[in-house]
Amino acid sequence: MRVAVIGLGTMGMGAAQNLAKTEGLEVTGVDPRAEARTAFGAAVANGAALPDGQDAALVFVVNAAQARDALFGPNGAAPHLAPGAVCIVSSTMSPADARALAASAEALGLLYLDAPVSGGAVGAASGQMTVMASGSDDAFAKSAPVLAAISKRVFDMGRAPGLGTTMKVVHQLLAGVHIAAAAEAMALGLKAGIDGQTLYDVVTTAAGNSWMFQDRMAHVLAGDDTPKSAVDIFVKDLTLVTDMARAENLPVPLAAQAMQLFVAARGMGQGGRDDAFVIRVWEAMAGVTLPKP
Amino acid sequence: MRVAVIGLGTMGMGAAQNLAKTEGLEVTGVDPRAEARTAFGAAVANGAALPDGQDAALVFVVNAAQARDALFGPNGAAPHLAPGAVCIVSSTMSPADARALAASAEALGLLYLDAPVSGGAVGAASGQMTVMASGSDDAFAKSAPVLAAISKRVFDMGRAPGLGTTMKVVHQLLAGVHIAAAAEAMALGLKAGIDGQTLYDVVTTAAGNSWMFQDRMAHVLAGDDTPKSAVDIFVKDLTLVTDMARAENLPVPLAAQAMQLFVAARGMGQGGRDDAFVIRVWEAMAGVTLPKP
Repeated sequence: MRVAVIGLGTMGMGAAQNLAKTEGLEVTGVDPRAEARTAFGAAVANGAALPDGQDAALVFVVNAAQARDALFGPNGAAPHLAPGAVCIVSSTMSPADARALAASAEALGLLYLDAPVSGGAVGAASGQMTVMASGSDDAFAKSAPVLAAISKRVFDMGRAPGLGTTMKVVHQLLAGVHIAAAAEAMALGLKAGIDGQTLYDVVTTAAGNSWMFQDRMAHVLAGDDTPKSAVDIFVKDLTLVTDMARAENLPVPLAAQAMQLFVAARGMGQGGRDDAFVIRVWEAMAGVTLPKP
Repeated sequence: MRVAVIGLGTMGMGAAQNLAKTEGLEVTGVDPRAEARTAFGAAVANGAALPDGQDAALVFVVNAAQARDALFGPNGAAPHLAPGAVCIVSSTMSPADARALAASAEALGLLYLDAPVSGGAVGAASGQMTVMASGSDDAFAKSAPVLAAISKRVFDMGRAPGLGTTMKVVHQLLAGVHIAAAAEAMALGLKAGIDGQTLYDVVTTAAGNSWMFQDRMAHVLAGDDTPKSAVDIFVKDLTLVTDMARAENLPVPLAAQAMQLFVAARGMGQGGRDDAFVIRVWEAMAGVTLPKP
């Protein structure tokens, strides 16, 4: 089975490496950045350079516009996909964009799996991502060997493209609010004279814990703002949340408020830094002293 | 060692039962409600009825005013505490109230441990609560046999009364925001056509999970609004959060927003229901159909 992995960023690279280790799969990476191609090995600069007869294209680019371009643009992968091949799209986007991409794939006789993931860099590297997917039975069947190599669990969200993405948007509501809440709580504790490490130890053994608190506040305690996931990503993803919620006529006051905090962090020049450093908004507003400035 | 447990609600009853099982401790419960006294057995209606010579008073009433009354009011326990006995106060209150209670205890020659807990009804019943305590070395030493019987871990937040309570208030910021965020995400998913149980299964295996999401959304899926912890508690606790943050000159936009949602739930007549049913605010605003109405 020939598999193209399009977008060799943190997530795509982890997926590509796990696929390359899997017997029976012949993997080609696609990335415009020479350093990413060198790091992976068997890779080309764009979809037009792919060998013919690919059976699956796994897409890990950053948004819907890039996914459309990577598959159906002038240098897209579509002409090199075999008849009945599957497009497995893991980029986070709106449900409407996922449905539109699925329609484009179907018009070309291709299968489409709407397949966002959770698990971050660690999950991608270890082949232990969580996949929340929707699509036809054929799309699931064709994708199975690929998903097995990159994930610990595949949730079947239904037959209609868009449901996987809907689930991912709901997930990102929680992820974004939890990161901002973790920063808000850490900032309040530090300002009120609680030691940061002690606060971390209490919360992570108590009912106030979240996956994001445990993961991201460790970055703050270490003073490490190297972006595992950047502030800009949550400006984008919380925009997807508020857009989808408005379309559903459902208010999301916490997600809307969390977005303002990530926007503030971006306004402070922190857009490219690790998302945990949204805490610098409170540092700026209230004079909080961070553990390692 | 004679121990009085004041307030035989869910938390106090669990603590009292674990203390009563511990060799070397002679436990008397204190509660104005006859049914609570009957349920525990060895109990009196108020502090004035306690046997003399109590070595510790463990206080699990609902707020600072009740704690002051229970210890130092006209029918309070203080006259029946032995010289050098310790008041272990686990009620959630403001740091200023904790410091004032500690000063009252010290004026009577009593020790004081500012000792809020986390772990909920399950932690209390199993003797596995998390304690975040502050006070003098003598207060910690005198409290040790009591805390050992009711908790899995005691965090030492420092020597000054108020630091334990400060940590609890920070913890409640996370707890309150996480419950409201869980409800907001579940409401959005349901409105957008995601099955509630599938949404729960995805989130609880992914990076969007929180202790509160996992615990409280199970109540929503079961349609069980029996209050393990009530909406009213989070109106109170998030008021403590916003009051303390204002005193520290630190904005808490997420906690402030979460409080408005619990206030809305109380306004809808849900104040006495399980806090997870803050989701009824979205049901009312946006016509969400809950899994079990």
